[in-house]
Amino acid sequence: MKKSIFYHAGCSVCVSAEQDIIALIGADKVEVVNLAEHRNQIEEAEKAGIKSVPALVTTNGNVLHINFGASLADVKG
Amino acid sequence: MKKSIFYHAGCSVCVSAEQDIIALIGADKVEVVNLAEHRNQIEEAEKAGIKSVPALVTTNGNVLHINFGASLADVKG
Repeated sequence: MKKSIFYHAGCSVCVSAEQDIIALIGADKVEVVNLAEHRNQIEEAEKAGIKSVPALVTTNGNVLHINFGASLADVKG
Repeated sequence: MKKSIFYHAGCSVCVSAEQDIIALIGADKVEVVNLAEHRNQIEEAEKAGIKSVPALVTTNGNVLHINFGASLADVKG
């Protein structure tokens, strides 16, 4: 089964949103990527259309930016 | 079963997010409120902590602001 991907950067806003998203969608339906720990996936996140984290990329490729933790520029910097 | 509540205001960003949220969570688990049509619920949305729409209030009361369609001030104005 294709999963949604939740990108975050370890910030408090991200962690809170992650818990909510997992509770809503189910842990088995979402892959969680911490871009602060996996910096090699930042480019993949940008290509998916992500401008800030936390964000959820749905299985059909739509990006839902959730609340506002950090811009990708800040994650890269 | 307690449902999450998805507040929106009919804007294109809102409608797109609504479709994604329903696909993710399931239509039976989310109540959808269009604040542009149900202006009497704007105060309830504000009390829930909503600053902009589209936004999802989870069953435990957390608010997830999704993307950015319109501020509540704009919906009221």
